[in-house]
This record gives sequence, structure tokens and C-alpha cells, in this order.
Amino acid sequence: MSTVTWPDQTVSDALAAVQATSPLTYGLTNYISAPLAANAILAVGGSPAFGALPGGIAHLATIASGVFLNLASLITDTYDDLRTAARAAHDAGTPWVLDPVVVGAGIAQHDAFAAELLELRPTAIRGNASEVLALAGGASTSKGVDATASTEEVVDLAAALARRTGAVVAVSGEVDRITDGTEVVAVPGGHPWLPRVTATGCALGGLTATFLGAGTAPLQAVVAAHAVLAVAAERAAPHARGTGTFAAALLDELSLLRPASQ
Amino acid sequence: MSTVTWPDQTVSDALAAVQATSPLTYGLTNYISAPLAANAILAVGGSPAFGALPGGIAHLATIASGVFLNLASLITDTYDDLRTAARAAHDAGTPWVLDPVVVGAGIAQHDAFAAELLELRPTAIRGNASEVLALAGGASTSKGVDATASTEEVVDLAAALARRTGAVVAVSGEVDRITDGTEVVAVPGGHPWLPRVTATGCALGGLTATFLGAGTAPLQAVVAAHAVLAVAAERAAPHARGTGTFAAALLDELSLLRPASQ
Amino acid sequence: MSTVTWPDQTVSDALAAVQATSPLTYGLTNYISAPLAANAILAVGGSPAFGALPGGIAHLATIASGVFLNLASLITDTYDDLRTAARAAHDAGTPWVLDPVVVGAGIAQHDAFAAELLELRPTAIRGNASEVLALAGGASTSKGVDATASTEEVVDLAAALARRTGAVVAVSGEVDRITDGTEVVAVPGGHPWLPRVTATGCALGGLTATFLGAGTAPLQAVVAAHAVLAVAAERAAPHARGTGTFAAALLDELSLLRPASQ
Repeated sequence: MSTVTWPDQTVSDALAAVQATSPLTYGLTNYISAPLAANAILAVGGSPAFGALPGGIAHLATIASGVFLNLASLITDTYDDLRTAARAAHDAGTPWVLDPVVVGAGIAQHDAFAAELLELRPTAIRGNASEVLALAGGASTSKGVDATASTEEVVDLAAALARRTGAVVAVSGEVDRITDGTEVVAVPGGHPWLPRVTATGCALGGLTATFLGAGTAPLQAVVAAHAVLAVAAERAAPHARGTGTFAAALLDELSLLRPASQ
Repeated sequence: MSTVTWPDQTVSDALAAVQATSPLTYGLTNYISAPLAANAILAVGGSPAFGALPGGIAHLATIASGVFLNLASLITDTYDDLRTAARAAHDAGTPWVLDPVVVGAGIAQHDAFAAELLELRPTAIRGNASEVLALAGGASTSKGVDATASTEEVVDLAAALARRTGAVVAVSGEVDRITDGTEVVAVPGGHPWLPRVTATGCALGGLTATFLGAGTAPLQAVVAAHAVLAVAAERAAPHARGTGTFAAALLDELSLLRPASQ
Repeated sequence: MSTVTWPDQTVSDALAAVQATSPLTYGLTNYISAPLAANAILAVGGSPAFGALPGGIAHLATIASGVFLNLASLITDTYDDLRTAARAAHDAGTPWVLDPVVVGAGIAQHDAFAAELLELRPTAIRGNASEVLALAGGASTSKGVDATASTEEVVDLAAALARRTGAVVAVSGEVDRITDGTEVVAVPGGHPWLPRVTATGCALGGLTATFLGAGTAPLQAVVAAHAVLAVAAERAAPHARGTGTFAAALLDELSLLRPASQ
């Protein structure tokens, strides 16, 4: 298992690609996380457009450079909205990210829907340990959006999920673990305040789609998105007094990152 | 009438209970207030999950430690979504909070729906003076989400509402008034910037459900949530230049509060 | 073409009118932008109420002092919700603002709906160059919410749109251009971080409705809203480290503005 952090060359190059192309990232997400996720994408140089616009879902998922589907978007969107987006991304070859929020929390139809979306072959799957564990077929103790299983427990299951679906699978935790089924990359860093700010997971999903949308290869793109958020969190903490100013400082640091080669 | 403020022992104990148990708070709220409300709950140590997930409303209201229903959630949710959540909370014995947003603003079907929800016996009702006045059967001059009646005018009506419904009733204002129909507790503090930041009322509803969810008795839990927000607002003001940094500083102060006994 | 900036007398007077009357601004907007837009309206002294409350849309659009309809609200609202609001505002004589988000991005039914709303005679239309270009009948290269046409290219088309619809038309850009079809006013200022914070365009739509709602004549009100946001952005930048603290500082500056005559 290798360890990758900012400013490793692959991460820096992936950010350079985002800032050079300002890729359009189309997302179906939810009203708790959308503002932070949109601002995170803008901060690194991407261009976000969110929401199930009537008549526009397939179009936006087709013309976008990357798509992310957060299953908590179902609080306002329909199953068909998400199916339409996933299918359009799949058919157009747009890389897309599945964020399996609330999977494994005991809602059978929700879990079944997540399993169905796997057939449309997400480019990446990003969740906390409980969600990935549940999606991979293990038991879960999640109570909604919380991570209660440890990262380590799920790396093997994540790799199996990656091999089965063809997706790069990322498990967020104190140390993030990212795998394509063969290789496993660890991304340390971050900060204890990160899980105490709502929507940082969704922001990571949006960043992942943005890095994929800039043309970087899947494993490197997913790793880069995680490494960028981790370093931004580390750098934000000294500028913050608590979780409120930490959220603003996190966006600051994302907006201040520049590729090493510039 | 007694007066309670941070760090009175009951308030400190109620916060200690939240931080010891990290209760799951399930909320149906709206896209204006959700981010601040979720971050306020996370800041004090709770665990928020929001939104009308298909097939998940009754489940989440049942497994949650506390539930809050903000009537402005009707801008994206249905009457049945809220009925389902209130009924599940009622049947499971989950304490739940009704935030009667926009009641009394002249929308008859909205006011009727609020009255209907009272039959499912909220543990607490929290609103501004106009909303509580309208819910209690008085006239109202509210123009939506504004407080235009004074707190003092409605204390008697609030106590009558508490006796009729069995709920603890909280009226937000310059000095908050909280009553179980017998006792009336005043919670002073706060700051003039508080009503100039959107969603602070909804955040208070979410905090109230979180403190109830940690097992503190209803009157003490509702008072504690109000006292905690009031002291956080007072402490935030010196760190802020205007209403924008005040919102971030408010979350900071919520995240920095520690029970006196620790 | 004249140039207007804060603290020109007309802008200062328009802000004084807002702060004297605290007008109710009713908006249909979306879950990405609502928090910032609501906070911007509150910061200048207005009173926001957002969302398609069942049975309340026509009522709120009628009793409000100003209305703004952001077409991205269609991610949760229906065409009929927006029609109802626009028609009620039109019939009640409530000034209303159309923000043609995503028009010209290649979604035919969306563009057709925007054209239909023009028949209900918005008081003001506010968008970026691509959106106004598309609404005015020109070609567009928009990829969603981005501005890719220059402001200058569209001033002539904006003036023609203003003459055709009777609306004041505002085109946001490095220098904003605002026209009633005869006169063209330039509003310079702002900051490069402004388009890198999500929802600043929507906030401008909300501020425009708020300034109209305070009774200032349309051209002056639209110009004032743009000048106020521009000066707030300029003043915010020195207090910010990046785009996160810039968003908070922007609200600070809006909340600190006082009319020159006070």
C-alpha cells in the first residue's frame, strides 16, 4: 500500500488539469450539502451545476465533464432522476461518482436502489466505512450518515467491490483508503473538525467528479481529490477557532492551492 | 418566573448528555436553513440526518433519538411526509419538536395542517411570538417568518397551549420564554445579529430535538437548547465584524462549549 | 452611458428605503443558493421568505413587496409553481425579478418556459451575459451557470429585450450593465472572487427584488442593488484569505452599509 499526499506530483498534476480546463461538474445532491459542495468545486477551479432540472438531467450529464450522484439527493429527487443521470453519464462516457449516503442504515428500498445503480458502472464510489461496507455486501451499523465501522475493516471488502464493479472505491476515514481492486492507496491528513462540518463528504464526492472530469486517470483522480481536501483541512485548522470558521477556512485553502509546477 | 442561563448546572448537564451520547436527530426542514441547522447540531456533539428519504421517513423517525419538524419543509416535502414522521415519532416514543414556521401568515391550509399535527403530541413547540400566538389561537400579524408580536404578549397563550397539548412551548425573542404550562422560564442573552442570520430559528429547533434526544427531561432540555444558543451568540459577537462572520463565529462558540463538570 | 457606484445619492437613498421599510421579499430559488441569498437580503435590512409552500405561493407573491424567480428553482419546484408566483405578482402589481439561470444551455423546454414567463412582464431581468443573450434571442455558448459571452456583446441585445418586455435588464460581468432600453448604466467594482462563490448571482437577484420592493423606481433600484453588492465585494476582499472567508466578509459588508444621509 502506497501513501499519497499533497504535493505529490500526481496530485499536483491533477489539480493543474482542473485549473486548466475548469470542467463542468453536474451533480444531484441535497439541500444540506449543496452550498459547501458547490463552493468546494468552485474553489479548486471547477464549474458546478446541480439539480434535477426538468428536461435537463440527461443533457447535463451528457455535456458535463464529470457527474456525481449523492443518494441523499433522493430527499427531493426521484429514483428516475438518478437513473436518468447515471444512464446518460454511462452512455456518454462521462465519468461518474456514486456517493452511497445512508446505504446500510436499514432502509431496504434505498439499499436496493444503490445496488441497481452499480449496474450503470460508476467510475468511482466514495463513502464512509459503513456505507462502503453495506454496499459491498457486509453488515453495517450505520445510523444514517455516520461512520461507525473502521476504515481498516473495509479495505478488503472495498477492493472486492472495486473488482466486481470496475469502480475505484474510496473509503473516507481518519486515513482515507482508495483502491481499484489491485492497488490500495492511503491518504492521511485531514482534521478532527472535518466530520463535524456537514457536507464535507458530499464536497469530496463533488471534488472527485471534478478531478475525474479534468481527464486524469481514475485512480489518480480519486486519490488527488482526497489528498487536496486533506491538505486543505490541515492548513485550515490553524486559521479557525471552531467548526464554523473551519468551514470557511477549508474553502479558503482549497481556493489557494496551486500546482507545484506553476 | 425563573431565569436560566449558561452555565447553570441543568444546562451544563444537558450539554454533557448530548456530548456523551451523540444522539441522532432526524429533521424535516428546508433548503434555506438545513446547512446551518445541521452544523449547529454537529457543533454541540449531535448527529443530524435530514430529509424525506423515500421509504425512510418512519424508519429514521423511529430509530432517531429526537425529531424536529419545521413546517417550512413543506416547500419540498408533502403533508404526508410530515404526518409520517410525526406519527412514527409519536408511536415510537421519540421526542419530537414542532417548529410552526409561517403559521399565522394568512395561509389557511398551512395553519390547519399545523393544528392537525398537534394531535400527534409534539414534545416541544418552538417558534417566534407571532407563530406561537397563531398556533395558540390568537390573532397574528406575521408576514411569513418574521416576529412582529412581542414575547410578553404571548406567554399566557403559550402556557395555555402547553396545557392543552402537553408540549413544552418556547417563544423566541429578545428574551426567550419557555413554559410547560405551569412553570415559565426566561432565557435572556443572544444578540441583535441573531435574527439577521437566516436559519437560526431552525437551528434552535434542531438543537432542541438534540437536547431532548439525549434524555434530559423536556422542560430542562428545551431551556438548555435555548441557553446554549444564547450564550454562543453573545460570545460570537466580539469575534465578528458583521452578520456573515457572526454566523461562522456562532458555530465556533457552539463547538467550543464544554460542560462545567468536565 | 453613465456610471454609478456606491455611495451615489440614488444608491444611498435606495438602501435607506430598504432599511426604513424592511420589505418582504418572496423568492422561488434553489437549494444551492438559498442560504446566501436569504442572508444577503437580511444583511441589507430586508425580510426574505422563500419556497413553494402549498397553498401559499400566490398569497406570498401578493403580500410581498418584491418577488424574485430564479429558474434554477425548477430543480425542486414545478413550472406551475413559478407561473403561479409570476401571475400573482403581475396581477397584484408586485415588482418581480426574473433570473434566467441555465437559459441558453441547450435545454429547449427550459428556454421555452423562460420565454413564456416574459409574457407576465417581469419588472427586471438579471443574468449573466450568456443567459441574457439567449433570452434576447441570440446564440449562446453557456454551459449551465457560467458566463462565457462578454458583457459588451450583449448590451445592444439587452436594450432590445428591455424595450420588448418593459423590464429593466441587468447583465452581470466584470462591469455590470443595466438598461431600461433607453439609458444604459455601468456599475463597475466587485471582485474576481465574486463568481467563485456560489449563489452570488442569486443573491443579486434577491437584492434586486428587495430594492424594488422598497419603492425605488425600477432602473434606480436595479442599479442600486448591483452597486451595493459591488462595493460590498470590494470591501470584503481585504478581510478575506480566500473564497470561503470572502463569502462571510461579503455578508459582513452588506450588513455594515449605511445610507450616507444617516
